Amino acid sequence: MDRRPIGVFDSGLGGLTAVRELARLMPEEDLVYFGDTGRVPYGGRSRDILIKYARQDTAFLRSFDPKAIVIACGTVSTTALDVLQRENDIPIFGVVEPAVRAAALASQNHRVGLIGTRASIRSGAYERLLARLHPGAEVTARACPLFVPLVENGRFLPGDIVAETVAAEYLAPIQAAGVDTLILGCTHYPLLKPVIGAYMGPGVTLIDVGAQCARWTAERLDRAGLRAGGTGTGRHRFYVSDSTEDFAALASVFLREDVGSEVEQIDITEYEGAARPAGAGQG
Amino acid sequence: MDRRPIGVFDSGLGGLTAVRELARLMPEEDLVYFGDTGRVPYGGRSRDILIKYARQDTAFLRSFDPKAIVIACGTVSTTALDVLQRENDIPIFGVVEPAVRAAALASQNHRVGLIGTRASIRSGAYERLLARLHPGAEVTARACPLFVPLVENGRFLPGDIVAETVAAEYLAPIQAAGVDTLILGCTHYPLLKPVIGAYMGPGVTLIDVGAQCARWTAERLDRAGLRAGGTGTGRHRFYVSDSTEDFAALASVFLREDVGSEVEQIDITEYEGAARPAGAGQG
Repeated sequence: MDRRPIGVFDSGLGGLTAVRELARLMPEEDLVYFGDTGRVPYGGRSRDILIKYARQDTAFLRSFDPKAIVIACGTVSTTALDVLQRENDIPIFGVVEPAVRAAALASQNHRVGLIGTRASIRSGAYERLLARLHPGAEVTARACPLFVPLVENGRFLPGDIVAETVAAEYLAPIQAAGVDTLILGCTHYPLLKPVIGAYMGPGVTLIDVGAQCARWTAERLDRAGLRAGGTGTGRHRFYVSDSTEDFAALASVFLREDVGSEVEQIDITEYEGAARPAGAGQG
Repeated sequence: MDRRPIGVFDSGLGGLTAVRELARLMPEEDLVYFGDTGRVPYGGRSRDILIKYARQDTAFLRSFDPKAIVIACGTVSTTALDVLQRENDIPIFGVVEPAVRAAALASQNHRVGLIGTRASIRSGAYERLLARLHPGAEVTARACPLFVPLVENGRFLPGDIVAETVAAEYLAPIQAAGVDTLILGCTHYPLLKPVIGAYMGPGVTLIDVGAQCARWTAERLDRAGLRAGGTGTGRHRFYVSDSTEDFAALASVFLREDVGSEVEQIDITEYEGAARPAGAGQG
């Protein structure tokens, strides 16, 4: 039994798709979410900047003394997970391994598609793990740099000609490769599921990295005896690095929950992410 | 005669369209450019965050003791120009007034179109000034939040189906309004000129805010006796808040000049933008 909250962060709103699943699976847990809306999007930034931002995001969440941190961001998971795990003495979960395990299970024809941000695809993180867990699988990967701006601008519904045109362009080579499984390697992409699903057709299983990571987290916390227990309803707090107003309006779309009064703006650059050496006691 | 450099900043690469024009008009001037590539884009952020970022950008440029600063960014010009002018004792030029004056001169039928980022359009800055300088002009304004991501991803050439689809959607109501002049209210947009021009037709004059602002700056510096003089070739230095590699590759597209060894990465958050009261001596 551990009543400490679970910390979750993302570059912006995408991570809320993981929060929704975390709340569904573990309604009794307290959740603290940080969305770096003042610096979104992360997907086109360099490795060094991403590690810097990820350290700050983690340092902020650690100020709540969480029992675990979920990196609900494909870009940070592919680029900074090992750094954050090395520097922190609490479990840090990323989206890559849960998604790759789900894809390896789902694929029958050993052809897996992968879409993500430029930084995620450049990292090669999904492919490396898939090669280990599902040797012989053939991966067709594609960076989709316009998907996050589209989603953050509310352009993700079927019938949106721009979303459909962009999706068709990105997905054509993946469809041509005959994949039966497609990893949506960014927590923003589940909102594009109807558009992506319509293009790929019903024979292709779409793997939602945020949802997979939420399940993975619940399982790991269970096994480690770190669940809060009880039957209460956990408190959900949301923090952002830009205006709370813009966030609250869009958050409901991602979360299907009113974030209302539980949103606060903070200055993320104040959390310099001084690396806490693994093994050091918790503050 | 004043040999101090001219400072120029933008959220990312767009401001380079102004640098190109500044260098053409004043080849002898030293230029220091800052592109906030670690936090681009600015256009969807709140007023408070934009003012904070603009203060840091200005504080960084002031460390070079510039004789003037050009805000080569539509979003900051519409949102923080007055704040920066109040807090600094050197001339600060924005893109709004030069563009609006050019539009007022160009329009024959008093119908002016305006496109910009969400923050720029929300500010109402262009419309307010146009109403003063060209009373009776009818303005049709439209936020184009996907234009900056398109341009920063190199998606701006005619024949790019996504760029053309997005442009057609944004520009349809402006074309329907029968404008004869269109203000491209963001320094990223000149790269989309061929796409925008093809859609709007040859009867519509496109006003490039970066180029107009560069001309305005040259004129003002001339009048104030602040030009460097001589016939030498000024030095152009470039600073960014993310990797210099990614910047150098794209910069040549905007600038048509090799930025090569003159690019350096800095930590913009170290420049806290401590407001320098107007009238205080220069450091």
